[in-house]
Amino acid sequence: MDKTSFRQHISSQFNAELEDVRQRVMAMGGLVEQQIVDATIALMDLDAGMAEQVNLNDFKINQLEVSIDEECSRILARRQPTASDLRLVYAVIKTITDLERIGDEAGKIARMAKDLASQERIHENMREVQHLSRQVSQMVRDALDAFARMDTDAALNVARQDRDVDREYEALLRQCITFMMEDPRTIGRVMDIIWCVRALERIGDHAKNISEYVVYFVKGKDIRHLSLEAAEKEITQG
Amino acid sequence: MDKTSFRQHISSQFNAELEDVRQRVMAMGGLVEQQIVDATIALMDLDAGMAEQVNLNDFKINQLEVSIDEECSRILARRQPTASDLRLVYAVIKTITDLERIGDEAGKIARMAKDLASQERIHENMREVQHLSRQVSQMVRDALDAFARMDTDAALNVARQDRDVDREYEALLRQCITFMMEDPRTIGRVMDIIWCVRALERIGDHAKNISEYVVYFVKGKDIRHLSLEAAEKEITQG
Repeated sequence: MDKTSFRQHISSQFNAELEDVRQRVMAMGGLVEQQIVDATIALMDLDAGMAEQVNLNDFKINQLEVSIDEECSRILARRQPTASDLRLVYAVIKTITDLERIGDEAGKIARMAKDLASQERIHENMREVQHLSRQVSQMVRDALDAFARMDTDAALNVARQDRDVDREYEALLRQCITFMMEDPRTIGRVMDIIWCVRALERIGDHAKNISEYVVYFVKGKDIRHLSLEAAEKEITQG
Repeated sequence: MDKTSFRQHISSQFNAELEDVRQRVMAMGGLVEQQIVDATIALMDLDAGMAEQVNLNDFKINQLEVSIDEECSRILARRQPTASDLRLVYAVIKTITDLERIGDEAGKIARMAKDLASQERIHENMREVQHLSRQVSQMVRDALDAFARMDTDAALNVARQDRDVDREYEALLRQCITFMMEDPRTIGRVMDIIWCVRALERIGDHAKNISEYVVYFVKGKDIRHLSLEAAEKEITQG
């Protein structure tokens, strides 16, 4: 094997490793998405068994986080990537932290569902909660799609959706507070719902973070802590 | 300059760079600690001016996060660190995310303080809230000390404190719910306090995360997602 083909061999192995990491992030993302969906079903149907399942599944997400981190640090040590390869690894390291925390938030919803399942049923604003859950699930899916295709426009769209989610969240919170004021006997149960709504809002924030890492990977620009308008400008400027 | 001294020169420059990153993490940590203290003062004294100041200072923490991330990715690209140097950079990348989020939580407390300052004063359980704030500030300080000295025993101690914080948090939450039930006119105000208590509990979680990265750096072992007992065993096993 001459030197060039040896180098190509190394480089194609390296590409395979990077591709493998990307695939595993997508797999972790898929699990996380499913956890949000299942936790929401548990909440809507007050299904304690489903809630329990969500909490049991959380370990898979944690395991993936640990193993992807190991793989990234192995790649950094052995392959010493630079430029866009390095940015990919960097984006992965950040992304999996947010995915793991989305998993935690789904776990919180499941725990609340279990608690609510043991109480008297209330119907007040569960439709709106379900709607918020669909919105943030969509954000997570879109953030992962943006990651898979490394598409900055799609990433920016996730950040845009976060504004709607925040508005929806505020409205739901006000509604919950009104319920509690009108009938203080509901306070315990409504507090459980408030924690679910809060968890959903946090999931939206984490999806937004992931979309920001996509922009960092593609453009090499750090748009965290920028306003949406400033971020849009950064991206269109090339 | 012969080859050896050239290599030494490179290596001492590299050490200086690593030391600089460490120093900047400590500086970021110092700012974050101050934000918790100031946000708590704003909350206890219902001082809207102080609360405003906390929110204005948040950008400094965000800036540090962005610039430390830039420095880490520069070090990875140019120095291609391995072994414990790589683990340090890895621990820094993870740590600053948690520090930035502690800053966000302090910002939330400050916003609640501003909201409460415009309302009728309540005294119910503010002493307990202050106590919780002192506990989590101590956790953050201890986690940063553990980071500065790369001390796994100190790190493990932070994880131990998190249990007390969680207990305190649960008790405070129950107290808040009792207040709301006894006097539903307080619901709006008590909800503000609940968000502060929640933010403090989250700060404790982030401090615990930081202490886990210290263990990762020193021992090369990932103790996230382990029980406290399992983590203790991992560490003492060398």
